[in-house]
Amino acid sequence: MSRQTEDHCLTGELCEPTTEQGTDLLDLLSAHIPRITAESADNDRDGTFPADVFEALRKDGVLGGTVPKELGGLGVDSLYDVALALQMVAKADASTALALHMQLSRGLTLTHEWLHGSPSARSLAERLLRPMGSSDAVVCTTVKDAVAHRIVSKLTPAPGGGWVLTGRKMLASMAPIATVFVISAQTDVEGRPPGQAAAVISRDTEGLTVLDNWDGLGMRASGSVDIVMDNCFVADEDIFFRGLVGEHDDAMLAGQTVSSITMLGIYIGVAQAARDIAIGTVRKRGNDQAGTRTLVAEIDARLHSLRAAAGSALSLAEAPATGTLADPGERGRRMMTSFQSAKLVVNRTAPEIVGDCLTLVGGASFAAGHPLSRLLRDVRAGSFMHPFTYADAVDFLSAQALAP
Amino acid sequence: MSRQTEDHCLTGELCEPTTEQGTDLLDLLSAHIPRITAESADNDRDGTFPADVFEALRKDGVLGGTVPKELGGLGVDSLYDVALALQMVAKADASTALALHMQLSRGLTLTHEWLHGSPSARSLAERLLRPMGSSDAVVCTTVKDAVAHRIVSKLTPAPGGGWVLTGRKMLASMAPIATVFVISAQTDVEGRPPGQAAAVISRDTEGLTVLDNWDGLGMRASGSVDIVMDNCFVADEDIFFRGLVGEHDDAMLAGQTVSSITMLGIYIGVAQAARDIAIGTVRKRGNDQAGTRTLVAEIDARLHSLRAAAGSALSLAEAPATGTLADPGERGRRMMTSFQSAKLVVNRTAPEIVGDCLTLVGGASFAAGHPLSRLLRDVRAGSFMHPFTYADAVDFLSAQALAP
Amino acid sequence: MSRQTEDHCLTGELCEPTTEQGTDLLDLLSAHIPRITAESADNDRDGTFPADVFEALRKDGVLGGTVPKELGGLGVDSLYDVALALQMVAKADASTALALHMQLSRGLTLTHEWLHGSPSARSLAERLLRPMGSSDAVVCTTVKDAVAHRIVSKLTPAPGGGWVLTGRKMLASMAPIATVFVISAQTDVEGRPPGQAAAVISRDTEGLTVLDNWDGLGMRASGSVDIVMDNCFVADEDIFFRGLVGEHDDAMLAGQTVSSITMLGIYIGVAQAARDIAIGTVRKRGNDQAGTRTLVAEIDARLHSLRAAAGSALSLAEAPATGTLADPGERGRRMMTSFQSAKLVVNRTAPEIVGDCLTLVGGASFAAGHPLSRLLRDVRAGSFMHPFTYADAVDFLSAQALAP
Amino acid sequence: MSRQTEDHCLTGELCEPTTEQGTDLLDLLSAHIPRITAESADNDRDGTFPADVFEALRKDGVLGGTVPKELGGLGVDSLYDVALALQMVAKADASTALALHMQLSRGLTLTHEWLHGSPSARSLAERLLRPMGSSDAVVCTTVKDAVAHRIVSKLTPAPGGGWVLTGRKMLASMAPIATVFVISAQTDVEGRPPGQAAAVISRDTEGLTVLDNWDGLGMRASGSVDIVMDNCFVADEDIFFRGLVGEHDDAMLAGQTVSSITMLGIYIGVAQAARDIAIGTVRKRGNDQAGTRTLVAEIDARLHSLRAAAGSALSLAEAPATGTLADPGERGRRMMTSFQSAKLVVNRTAPEIVGDCLTLVGGASFAAGHPLSRLLRDVRAGSFMHPFTYADAVDFLSAQALAP
Repeated sequence: MSRQTEDHCLTGELCEPTTEQGTDLLDLLSAHIPRITAESADNDRDGTFPADVFEALRKDGVLGGTVPKELGGLGVDSLYDVALALQMVAKADASTALALHMQLSRGLTLTHEWLHGSPSARSLAERLLRPMGSSDAVVCTTVKDAVAHRIVSKLTPAPGGGWVLTGRKMLASMAPIATVFVISAQTDVEGRPPGQAAAVISRDTEGLTVLDNWDGLGMRASGSVDIVMDNCFVADEDIFFRGLVGEHDDAMLAGQTVSSITMLGIYIGVAQAARDIAIGTVRKRGNDQAGTRTLVAEIDARLHSLRAAAGSALSLAEAPATGTLADPGERGRRMMTSFQSAKLVVNRTAPEIVGDCLTLVGGASFAAGHPLSRLLRDVRAGSFMHPFTYADAVDFLSAQALAP
Repeated sequence: MSRQTEDHCLTGELCEPTTEQGTDLLDLLSAHIPRITAESADNDRDGTFPADVFEALRKDGVLGGTVPKELGGLGVDSLYDVALALQMVAKADASTALALHMQLSRGLTLTHEWLHGSPSARSLAERLLRPMGSSDAVVCTTVKDAVAHRIVSKLTPAPGGGWVLTGRKMLASMAPIATVFVISAQTDVEGRPPGQAAAVISRDTEGLTVLDNWDGLGMRASGSVDIVMDNCFVADEDIFFRGLVGEHDDAMLAGQTVSSITMLGIYIGVAQAARDIAIGTVRKRGNDQAGTRTLVAEIDARLHSLRAAAGSALSLAEAPATGTLADPGERGRRMMTSFQSAKLVVNRTAPEIVGDCLTLVGGASFAAGHPLSRLLRDVRAGSFMHPFTYADAVDFLSAQALAP
Repeated sequence: MSRQTEDHCLTGELCEPTTEQGTDLLDLLSAHIPRITAESADNDRDGTFPADVFEALRKDGVLGGTVPKELGGLGVDSLYDVALALQMVAKADASTALALHMQLSRGLTLTHEWLHGSPSARSLAERLLRPMGSSDAVVCTTVKDAVAHRIVSKLTPAPGGGWVLTGRKMLASMAPIATVFVISAQTDVEGRPPGQAAAVISRDTEGLTVLDNWDGLGMRASGSVDIVMDNCFVADEDIFFRGLVGEHDDAMLAGQTVSSITMLGIYIGVAQAARDIAIGTVRKRGNDQAGTRTLVAEIDARLHSLRAAAGSALSLAEAPATGTLADPGERGRRMMTSFQSAKLVVNRTAPEIVGDCLTLVGGASFAAGHPLSRLLRDVRAGSFMHPFTYADAVDFLSAQALAP
Repeated sequence: MSRQTEDHCLTGELCEPTTEQGTDLLDLLSAHIPRITAESADNDRDGTFPADVFEALRKDGVLGGTVPKELGGLGVDSLYDVALALQMVAKADASTALALHMQLSRGLTLTHEWLHGSPSARSLAERLLRPMGSSDAVVCTTVKDAVAHRIVSKLTPAPGGGWVLTGRKMLASMAPIATVFVISAQTDVEGRPPGQAAAVISRDTEGLTVLDNWDGLGMRASGSVDIVMDNCFVADEDIFFRGLVGEHDDAMLAGQTVSSITMLGIYIGVAQAARDIAIGTVRKRGNDQAGTRTLVAEIDARLHSLRAAAGSALSLAEAPATGTLADPGERGRRMMTSFQSAKLVVNRTAPEIVGDCLTLVGGASFAAGHPLSRLLRDVRAGSFMHPFTYADAVDFLSAQALAP
């Protein structure tokens, strides 16, 4: 498969990698696409995590894609190229792309810590990045506390020094094969205000349980299970400390953007895959009813617009921090505004496109095992991705627009 | 539960039955709603047909709802009221409503044959309606030939008189419990042009096999299986003969409308159920972010509009055949235009509403077992319902508008 | 022109009057449509109020259309039929319909005062209705204070009894020919909380000036000028007193609905007129490109839905105050919910339809004098009609939905 | 005004020029924006062409903006930067931008002729470009034959050599001040198939009449009048000959794209101007109703997406003709696909945005003289811009997608 001749590249954005390392990553990934495609239907039906695919990706160095070359990785530092890689994988299987995002995104943010963090953060980041670069570490990061259990994950001081971590996290994609977990929690120290932190623990830590409880509407092969931390010990040097709970600094918006913006590639990949299936079916059928042709044109016009919106937000997010972007708060706001604008449009339009593809294909696509059935369910995950629900995005974007 | 105080009745349409018999049907059905609701999640997960629910409905006479009183049924002849009944059931479980539609819709069209058909059609209709009225017959009607098998179902003359039926049908909802099948087929007689026909055979007919192969994206409990006819014998008097293949008469549009228009109630019921879940969640959460309130208002405004569009099309479809509706062709065109206008808007808007409900509820709704997950899958079936795909509806509506 | 054969009647709603008096009103109006049509382009260009048309309507008794027969009018009391009449006029000229609404709507609400008001309100209502019924009074009602002048219209006690009215009102449609003005104002009496009132003054009242300052984007022939009240004397018996400022009672929502809901017919009439022009052009051109046919079908499907939504809201608004509607607060909420749901959808969709009609017709429709140009501008007025802006509608509808 | 701090630059695309010459052009233009803004309301009301503005632009060398430096111009060859310049002007006045597009676009396409044309085309292009570069020539190009007159403009051989041009053109924006006209026409020579040609004639050519008949719904100051050619003599060397009528070569799609794609900047500028007015009004009012905040967020998200779609199409259109773009037919198809995808979305979404801005501002924006009134009318012109109506775009895009 030559990337250059794919249909969607007719329209410019999210088509060609922009860096040499990005090209290397896409080349490595290309070889795995047939296998990912082949497994996708079974893994979706059974809710099975594609551990074998990830083992193959690991052996090929893909899981160190965003680790700096000095630390043994491929050195991809372009958000645009990572989104492109995730798009390619998502066209084959969105669950696999979502899990892969976990690792590639972590490489990006840890590299930032390694370059710009405090001395202790640099050291911890390096201790994580090196094994990622050598393909020994698979890192699952969890943010969301398991709502139904109403537990906030907590770090309390251990009697003899260090900390004790307790809580339960949900939506820990890729957890089934993770060797290390980065777990956000609040410090709970008597007499001090609660702080934000991220604790790093290995899979064999006593008290850590990775559940096998993921059963989603879509993204069924992403292994987005819960993990339970029951009095896990964490050494002081294995924690990123990030300030007090409730503190807000617009500069933090930059890191939040970097951490999640490449997922736009996943949902565009899903819409593109649906489009390719539908166009293929219509071509074969030779149908040229008016409604069919109009839907086809409208699908392609909207896809063009989605790719452009995502491409533009990704480019801004990796623009150098100079000029008006020199101020960290301003840079954070601009990155997040552009990201959320694109995300809002993608979250609305990608499901519409996939829906129109089912309409084009007709009743045959309503079978549980039809690929469009999977895409219709997978694409819906977009509106639940971090950061910002629809209501939060409305609050944020309108506040930016109406700020004096 | 008092029907009068339901939220959606704030807005007028598809709220109250318009006939006494319709009221009786809704009262009978009300008692079964809790059970239908209780089973819905499990049946959806397992793809199980709710045979016990239908046995209970049968015992209560619901399955003879649209059979004339003279023939032992409840005598509901209002399309509006049937749509209302299906809406009520669909709010609990759309699959059950889709299967129930099969029986109620057949009662309506057979009653028309019984009243206005040729002598032989009247007689056959009566032989079907009487056991439906006494709750002994469950009638599954099939139209669509199984595409993948590229077989057109055929009736060929049997050597000693009568006919032999061969073919394969798909999407035969409610087939798992049907006692009788009405199967559309083409007559294939040497030297004569092919004719359209509908053959009536009982479940125990030799050569008839009801498969257990339904595994849909949604409507998973509707039992929409394939049936195979392998040289089934059909007596001459058990066939409705309907003219030559390819013949078209706009008067036929009326029957096609009657046969399918009440399904609009199903998809509005699904959207209403999603809305009720989402509103309930938002109420509990006490959230009043701007985006949340706007989505809530937009959902209710669109639901109002869908109910009104469906209600208007249903009213027109049961208007007396007088005045401008006296001409059968004109009446058929008007009924179908109104039906297809409503269907096009319902098929587009109902999925949007359900999608917005997931957005309102958030990530919790992305679990396979969450009721919104089922509704998101079920609602998508609307665009595959007879008659008319999106492209066919565009052809039909634009031809009506542009006719000289 | 037979109403029965109009294209839009293919779809049922807002097609036939529901009362005998409504039929009479439509018959009377029919005769004036050619003249209204003929003048529309010139009046739009010049911003001229069609005084001659209204003189002709007055002579024919149309301006007493909603006055009870006992008081000399036609006795139309169906909101549905009034909306239908306004739709018919709006298809010819929306400005004329908007001005006519002023008179017909006043007849409806004054009749309610006459039947159910306090003794003094009944008497005042009768003194207004009788000359309306005999075609001697043309009544302009104004609500909105002229914003730019930041003046609240006030009624202060006159030294020798009675009141003095001062202020400035805007958007007083039909004022150019009004003989009587009903002007909302606040009572301003020392030591007493401000009250809501509506003062009735004749055109020749000293201190009253009707400006000639209307220059709208659309509705240019509606005469929606400002009026200035400079110390106008008003007798006590010429004022409707309505409670204190800030008081709210959901029962009042019913009156607000009655006063404005029939305007839905205007904006649907505008969309219908645009559709008829576009379809006529496409028919003549004989074009059947895919995009053209799809737009045509989508326009008709949406128009069907708008007419149904408006028809449903109108029917609910004139439903008898029995059953769940017996409670005045509940009735007010239901009437307003249904009205605002329809208005929100009409305000969004009618402009889209008119826009699509320009797309269908092409560049020729971009001339200032083309009827579609006028319709594009006129239709936009819908979102500024009383009661409720978009934001107010979102607040109201979401509050209803989320109320415990 | 610093371009860098404009709100819309928060989102990346169509924000900063990409070339030095583009920067020069924007700097030159900046000085004229206040004057263009100041005149816009009066010119819109009266339908007056801003001749004084263009005289000032001419003196500053803006009208030679896209003429190569060697020929005396500014040498702007970036489509992206030209679109950015038009966007800046359109934010002040869309009519002015549309007229300016006429000149800047001609510079771009004539430069292509000068570089790559046949010897005679090069020579003619140079004879046009030099006076454009020295600000002596203002060139109006006309394509569309005046439809109502059903005349195809023709070039017939003149008795003593050379040609005679006869016909009538419409929508000749900027004609009121043009010194030269480039007029498309068909050659009509006995015994030979008709050919496509573009004749160059100066304003003082005998038989040429520039009418004063433009009276548009919007773009009222663009001077888009008709011109009449009554036996105008044209020398052989003043004609671009372009092949036979009916010949089609996908390579021509590239030139058509270059000629029109920069107009995307105009309609985005209009939407941006409407947004800025609405946001300013809401800020002042201090309103934060839910519906208001949601509209604000949705407007900004959609504007981001429009700018991205246009920016992406512009970037592709000026990408070097290498790699997959090396084949001229392939390059033409890709440029046009990307352009039409963006145009379709801009034509639909920009009017929606402007409409939502009127909703935000409220009734005050419904005055003929309010800037939003002008923007609502101007933005509608987008769907009539060359090349491709909506139906043609559907045909083109679906044909590209469904090509084997």
